Amino acid sequence: MTAPYVLVHGAWHTGDHWEPIADRLRRVGHTVHTPTVAGFGEGADPDVTHADGVDSIVRYVADRGLHDFVLVGHSFGGTIISKVAEAMPERIRRLVFWNAFVLENGNSINDESPASYREMVRGSAVDGRFSLPWPVWREAFLNDADEPTARAAFETLCPTPVSMLEDKLDLAKFHELIAAGRLRCSYLNCTEDIAMPHGEYAWHPRFSSRLGLCRIVQMPGSHEVLFTQPDALAAKIIEAGRD
Amino acid sequence: MTAPYVLVHGAWHTGDHWEPIADRLRRVGHTVHTPTVAGFGEGADPDVTHADGVDSIVRYVADRGLHDFVLVGHSFGGTIISKVAEAMPERIRRLVFWNAFVLENGNSINDESPASYREMVRGSAVDGRFSLPWPVWREAFLNDADEPTARAAFETLCPTPVSMLEDKLDLAKFHELIAAGRLRCSYLNCTEDIAMPHGEYAWHPRFSSRLGLCRIVQMPGSHEVLFTQPDALAAKIIEAGRD
Amino acid sequence: MTAPYVLVHGAWHTGDHWEPIADRLRRVGHTVHTPTVAGFGEGADPDVTHADGVDSIVRYVADRGLHDFVLVGHSFGGTIISKVAEAMPERIRRLVFWNAFVLENGNSINDESPASYREMVRGSAVDGRFSLPWPVWREAFLNDADEPTARAAFETLCPTPVSMLEDKLDLAKFHELIAAGRLRCSYLNCTEDIAMPHGEYAWHPRFSSRLGLCRIVQMPGSHEVLFTQPDALAAKIIEAGRD
Repeated sequence: MTAPYVLVHGAWHTGDHWEPIADRLRRVGHTVHTPTVAGFGEGADPDVTHADGVDSIVRYVADRGLHDFVLVGHSFGGTIISKVAEAMPERIRRLVFWNAFVLENGNSINDESPASYREMVRGSAVDGRFSLPWPVWREAFLNDADEPTARAAFETLCPTPVSMLEDKLDLAKFHELIAAGRLRCSYLNCTEDIAMPHGEYAWHPRFSSRLGLCRIVQMPGSHEVLFTQPDALAAKIIEAGRD
Repeated sequence: MTAPYVLVHGAWHTGDHWEPIADRLRRVGHTVHTPTVAGFGEGADPDVTHADGVDSIVRYVADRGLHDFVLVGHSFGGTIISKVAEAMPERIRRLVFWNAFVLENGNSINDESPASYREMVRGSAVDGRFSLPWPVWREAFLNDADEPTARAAFETLCPTPVSMLEDKLDLAKFHELIAAGRLRCSYLNCTEDIAMPHGEYAWHPRFSSRLGLCRIVQMPGSHEVLFTQPDALAAKIIEAGRD
Repeated sequence: MTAPYVLVHGAWHTGDHWEPIADRLRRVGHTVHTPTVAGFGEGADPDVTHADGVDSIVRYVADRGLHDFVLVGHSFGGTIISKVAEAMPERIRRLVFWNAFVLENGNSINDESPASYREMVRGSAVDGRFSLPWPVWREAFLNDADEPTARAAFETLCPTPVSMLEDKLDLAKFHELIAAGRLRCSYLNCTEDIAMPHGEYAWHPRFSSRLGLCRIVQMPGSHEVLFTQPDALAAKIIEAGRD
């Protein structure tokens, strides 16, 4: 009932963004880890690859000897936890994808995003890093916040290395593990999350349907309910993560 | 306002499973009937056909002289109430399909289910009866329960005769009645019900769209909110069943 | 924070139907206008075109010198606000489409509605005006009301000039403005709104996806939550309309 949690953040975030959730999980008895993926945050090396990002989390887990933990990935973080699951499937109690990418083998995040995103990344990256424009953040990522909340959250964001969005990932082993039923999975979908637009590109069931037998959990809210509904989000992460 | 209700259970259930709902409907003045479909429950004859199941409910209604009742079917029960409607359309005040099958003429439930279900039924039936494996129940049927609730509910289930899932049904008259506007219909959809996976095979709007002018009612929850949210379910059944 | 609102009603309604919402918006400091589109309401000229309807709202706004307002359109009203946006884009702070039509250039509402609606309009219009049949209103428009509420609301409806549903609209400029990012848009979707049936013809994401970068806001309820949930609707209109 009180498995440890490892929470992996999305693009433009760091581990610190999880604090409101980590705090709530700790209050009900969970140990919680919120590592920052290599390449994110102040002073990060922009010349990292997606593989470097994965390694940073695998090492974090190995160094601390973590076992039997619930591994949560948000958004971009879904690609990280998919690769971590390949590296150490036996250590993971359950994978929780929260509006997260579950890529097909060989694809990058950009390969599975609408053309408008691909062009935005290509057109506005600076020194290999990409920052989300304010109007996109406000309308499509934090559509359920008032403007001051959306602005304050925007100020906390960091650039994302373009490699994280463009590197094509070998996920053959991940999909074999799924097909073999060796990974227990949940997908948490916020029903007003339009960071991937509803319809053809929607998070759910597009990505969730790739996880085999998978528990679906939903809640109202945007891609960033972290900032607007931490209580509800923490409760839903527990609902998604329990046995 | 206080029409009688006849509630028809789904696969792996009996009429007794409706008790928490029946109780709540009675408290607001409805008379409620919860017959068990032939072939289900302790000591049931496993050599029944789907037609036997239908007959058992038609006889139940005829023997008690029930008229002007709301006829509710859950899941598999949707196929039963469709056939009961053919037998006695003039007795039915309204049909309520709660995440229930509305089959095309000539199809079986298996014909309209994902391949994974068909293979599961074929692979694990014993003596012509099929029990749902625990992981499928826990992740896809009671995804909104905690584990103890899901376990306790699992213990109450009974096997389903494979005929109920494999018999192909003549529903020509049912679809004629629908096309002629002679049956008032509601469809109650639980938005986290993934017993039929979201997407191509989803309950709604796949099945609801076959009912012509049909009132749609929705609530959050899994396929088995009977066990997790009896108050909300009873309220929604009333909302779906009223004039 | 307290921009003026101009609320444009749907078919079978007049500006007066907005009163419960206007009242709630005024209480939190907004100035609110609820003009009636030409051709609607008691004593209205039935020989109006859609263009006459648009003109009546453009004139209303111009006569009062309104600027920097949030322009809301419900259902049919979406076609009006699209044309008003063409006429005076610089006056509009934000467009809010509440389960509203966003037509492709050259189409009429009927062109983008299911065949059953087109036939209903064609078959039952009287003197160029069309009234919604009670069963359609009750099951598909006010599916979340009890019957007395649905009846009382039905009594307040007025016929809609068929031209409003059949006139094909030149919306080239509107779509250019959208493509150029010159209109800020929100789409408010009630999740049990089946006035357009769920699936192929659904309001969302069919219409919302035509608005470019668009804030999506959702709430539970039918096409006419105006009558069943005025508090929640007003709150969601504010959420959709704020910067």
